[in-house]
Amino acid sequence: MSSLGAMELYEQLMAQGETVRSLKAQKAPKVDVDAAVEQLLQMKLEFKRVTGADYKAGCPPEKVDVSQDGVNDTNDEGADLVDPWSVSSSSASGVDYDKLIGVSQATCESFRGSKIDQELVDRIARLSGKTPHRFLRRGIFFSHRDMHQVLDAVEQRKPFYLYTGRGPSSQAMHLGHLVPFIFTKWLQDVFGVPLVVQLTDDEKYLWKDLTLDECRRFAVENARDIIACGFDINKTFIFSDLDYMGASPAFYRNVVRVQKHVTFNQVKGIFGFSDSDCIGKISFPAIQAAPSFSNSFPQIFGDRTDVQCLIPCAIDQDPYFRMTRDVAPRISCLKPALLHSTFFPALQGAQTKMSSSDPNSSIFLTDTAKQIKNKVNKHAFSGGKDTVEEHRKFGGNPDVDVSFMYLRFFMEDDEQLEKIRQNYSSGALLTGELKKLLIETLQPLVAEHQENRKLVTDEIVQQFMSPRKLNIS
Amino acid sequence: MSSLGAMELYEQLMAQGETVRSLKAQKAPKVDVDAAVEQLLQMKLEFKRVTGADYKAGCPPEKVDVSQDGVNDTNDEGADLVDPWSVSSSSASGVDYDKLIGVSQATCESFRGSKIDQELVDRIARLSGKTPHRFLRRGIFFSHRDMHQVLDAVEQRKPFYLYTGRGPSSQAMHLGHLVPFIFTKWLQDVFGVPLVVQLTDDEKYLWKDLTLDECRRFAVENARDIIACGFDINKTFIFSDLDYMGASPAFYRNVVRVQKHVTFNQVKGIFGFSDSDCIGKISFPAIQAAPSFSNSFPQIFGDRTDVQCLIPCAIDQDPYFRMTRDVAPRISCLKPALLHSTFFPALQGAQTKMSSSDPNSSIFLTDTAKQIKNKVNKHAFSGGKDTVEEHRKFGGNPDVDVSFMYLRFFMEDDEQLEKIRQNYSSGALLTGELKKLLIETLQPLVAEHQENRKLVTDEIVQQFMSPRKLNIS
Repeated sequence: MSSLGAMELYEQLMAQGETVRSLKAQKAPKVDVDAAVEQLLQMKLEFKRVTGADYKAGCPPEKVDVSQDGVNDTNDEGADLVDPWSVSSSSASGVDYDKLIGVSQATCESFRGSKIDQELVDRIARLSGKTPHRFLRRGIFFSHRDMHQVLDAVEQRKPFYLYTGRGPSSQAMHLGHLVPFIFTKWLQDVFGVPLVVQLTDDEKYLWKDLTLDECRRFAVENARDIIACGFDINKTFIFSDLDYMGASPAFYRNVVRVQKHVTFNQVKGIFGFSDSDCIGKISFPAIQAAPSFSNSFPQIFGDRTDVQCLIPCAIDQDPYFRMTRDVAPRISCLKPALLHSTFFPALQGAQTKMSSSDPNSSIFLTDTAKQIKNKVNKHAFSGGKDTVEEHRKFGGNPDVDVSFMYLRFFMEDDEQLEKIRQNYSSGALLTGELKKLLIETLQPLVAEHQENRKLVTDEIVQQFMSPRKLNIS
Repeated sequence: MSSLGAMELYEQLMAQGETVRSLKAQKAPKVDVDAAVEQLLQMKLEFKRVTGADYKAGCPPEKVDVSQDGVNDTNDEGADLVDPWSVSSSSASGVDYDKLIGVSQATCESFRGSKIDQELVDRIARLSGKTPHRFLRRGIFFSHRDMHQVLDAVEQRKPFYLYTGRGPSSQAMHLGHLVPFIFTKWLQDVFGVPLVVQLTDDEKYLWKDLTLDECRRFAVENARDIIACGFDINKTFIFSDLDYMGASPAFYRNVVRVQKHVTFNQVKGIFGFSDSDCIGKISFPAIQAAPSFSNSFPQIFGDRTDVQCLIPCAIDQDPYFRMTRDVAPRISCLKPALLHSTFFPALQGAQTKMSSSDPNSSIFLTDTAKQIKNKVNKHAFSGGKDTVEEHRKFGGNPDVDVSFMYLRFFMEDDEQLEKIRQNYSSGALLTGELKKLLIETLQPLVAEHQENRKLVTDEIVQQFMSPRKLNIS
C-alpha cells in the first residue's frame, strides 16, 4: 500500500477530531479518549509528512491558512516530524515511538510497524540460542515488519539475508551511525547469515553539493568504519551504488522493475518530492529498494528470488521500505522484513538525531579521549537540577538526560544501568558523576573502534567490496 | 536552454497574434505577413507540444476550453504534432519541416535546428571526398545542430564519433527504421569514425506491456538487422541498456550526472510527463543522453571528454538531445551535434510515420517479394487521379504520392527519379506504373537485407555487443 492522499487524510482527520470531541462530551473512559487522541496525533503526523503543512481543521490540503484547530486542546506535545532527511520532535524525551508505530490503533496501516514485544524478543532468544542484544532488551529496536516470518524461515531452516546501508555524505561517522551496524553484526553472528551493505554514494551526489569522486571516496572511507565493526568477511558484501550499478545487470534490472511500478504521485506522497526536484532524486528510491530482492545479487544467491531479506535500520528509512514492500508482490518478489531502531539523540537533546553537519552535536568515531570528555561535559543535555541542593532533593530526570540515554545504547550491564537510573532519579548520582560514567564508557569503545579501523587495510576493503560468492550455508 | 513555460508561450502567442493582425491591417508586404504567420504556427506547435492542448486565444494554459481562436484564418493546415512517441500532421504531404525548424524566424530558439543548406552539403562532400548521400541531396536529412563544428574537427584532424539508436519494441523492423542506419553507415564509411548504437530495451520495458526478457531479446534481434546494414565491426559498438548499464560504471556516472541537472519540471515541459507517470519514465531521458558523452565509453575513448559526438536521428528524437545539449556544459561535457531526418511515411500517407504496430502501414524487413508487391499495390496512398483519362489529362501529384516518396528514399539515380517525377506530374506515368517501379526497387533491397541478415551469426552479434576497444584511428 502506498500512502493515503492528502485529501483522504484530511477527511479522516476531520472525522477523528469529531470522535475525540464526542468521546469527551460523553465523558467516555479515559483509556478510550486517550486511544482516540493518540490516533489523532498519529494521523496529524502522517498529514504533515504528506503535505508538509500542519493539519488545520476546516482547511483542506493546499488551502491551509489561518483557521482554528478544532481539537487543539488535545495536542499538547506538538507534532513529530520523521522522514529520511529530517527528524525532529518538540519533546525533550524525543519522538514518541509508540505513537509512531500506532500502538493503540490507527487507520494509516501503511505507516505502522508492529511493536517488538517481549514475546518476539523471547522468540529471537530461543531461536538464536543467545541472550538478546541490549538494543532488543531496551527497546532501542522497537518496531518490526514481518519479523515472525523471518523466524519461521529460521525454524524451517530456510535461508534469509540481512541488508542495511549508509549514505556516505562525509568521511566522519559518528556514534549514532554505528547503531544499525552494531545490531546487524549481532544478527549476523547469532544467525550466521549473509549481509549486503549498500553505500548510497549516488544518493549523496544527487542531494549534496559534492562531486561523484568525493561521494565515492566517502563510501570507501565509511566502508572502513563499517568493517571495523567486525563483520564476517566470508558473509558480507559492501557495495557503492556508483560501482555496483555498473557491475551488475541483475541489480539494474531490479531497479528498472521497481521504477516501472512506482509513480511520481507515489514518491511525492511518500518523500515529499516536488516538481522542481531533479529526476535523479525522483527515481532514487528504486535504487534503495533493489537490494531487498535476493536476485539483485546473483553472485551470492544465483537467480533465487525466494531468499527472505531482513533490514535493520533507523525508523526514518521506513518510507523507502514501505514503498519497496508495496512494489514487491507486483514484481513477483518477497517483501523484505524490517527491524526499526529509534534515533540516536544529539548531545543537545533528543529533539533531533545526531548529525554530522553539526560537530558539537556529535561524538565522532575519530574523536580523541579528550574531545569525548569535553563534548560530553560541555554539550550533553542534562536532566539534572540547577543546583546540587535541588538535585539531591528532587532528583534528576533520566528520560531527558542525554548522558543516560547514551548509556542505554552502550552500557552492556542491565543491572548497573538500572542502578544508575535509580540513583540519578533519586538525586544520589549527580550530573557530573553520570557524565563521568558515560565518558568512561565511550572512551574505550571509540578507542577500540579506532584500533580496529587501523587494521582494515586497502586489501581488506577491496575484498569486502568485490562482488563475489559468499558463504551462505 | 529548456523549453519555455506554457504561460510564457501563451503570452508570446497572444502578442504574435496581435502582430499578424496588425500587419494585415496595415497591408504590409506579403513576405512580412507570411513570416509572421509562419512564426505563429511554429509557436502554436510548441504550445501544443508543451501543454498537450491546442492554443486558443483568450484561454491561458490549464483553462483552455471553448473560446475563439483570434487568428484562426491564418491556420489553414492545422497543427503538426511531433514528439518522441507520436508524429502526426493534417497535411497529406506530411509535416512541414521548414516550419518545424523555423526557417524564417522564431522566438523558440530551443526548438529550432539549422537547415541543411547546399553550402553544408557541399562542405560535407568536399571534406569526405565523396558524392553526398541521396538523403543529403534530397533533404531527407534536412536539419542540423552544430554540424559545422563537426566538420571543423574533421578539418583539424580531431576525432569525432557517431551515436544513434533504436527502441526495440518488437522483433519486426520496417523500412523506416533503416533510414538512420543507412545514413549512419554512410557517415561511418566516408569519415572512418567509430559508432555507438544504443538499444533502449529499458525504455521499451518502461513504456510497453513487455517483460524485461522480451525487451532484451528484441534488442538482440534488432541488432542483427542493424549489423546487416554493413557497419564496420572494428568501429562499431552496439549495446542494450539493460546490459551496458550493468557493465560500465562510467556510463552510470554520466546518467547520474545528467539526472542531477534536470528537474521534473523540465522533463514535464519537454516530454509532457505527468504526475501519474512512473519514475522510470521520468528519469529515462538521462539514459538516452549519456551516450552523447565520450567518457561513457572508456573502453573506446579512455577518460576523454573532448571527443565530439554526432547524432543522426529522426526529428522526433530531438527533444532528448535538446535536453542533452542544455545539460552538457553544466557537467563539463561537449554538446552533441545533430543531423535530423524527416519521417518515413506510412503506406497510407505522410500524415503519420510508418509504425510497427499497424502491419498494413509498413513494409517489414521480413516481408516476401509477394507481400511487398501486394502491400504497395493495395495500401500505398496514390497522388494519381481517379480515372486514367483524368490522370492523362491533369497528371498526378508526386508530393502526396507515397510510392514516389519511397522512391525518393531508395532510388539512387537522381536523373531517373526526376524523370519519374516529371512523367507522373504530366500524366505520362500512371499510378500502376509508378507502383511497379517502387516494387522493383524495394524487392531486391529487402531481399538483399534478408541475405545479409542471414550471414549475421550469434558470434558476430556477440562481438558487436561486447564492450571493447574500437579502431578509432
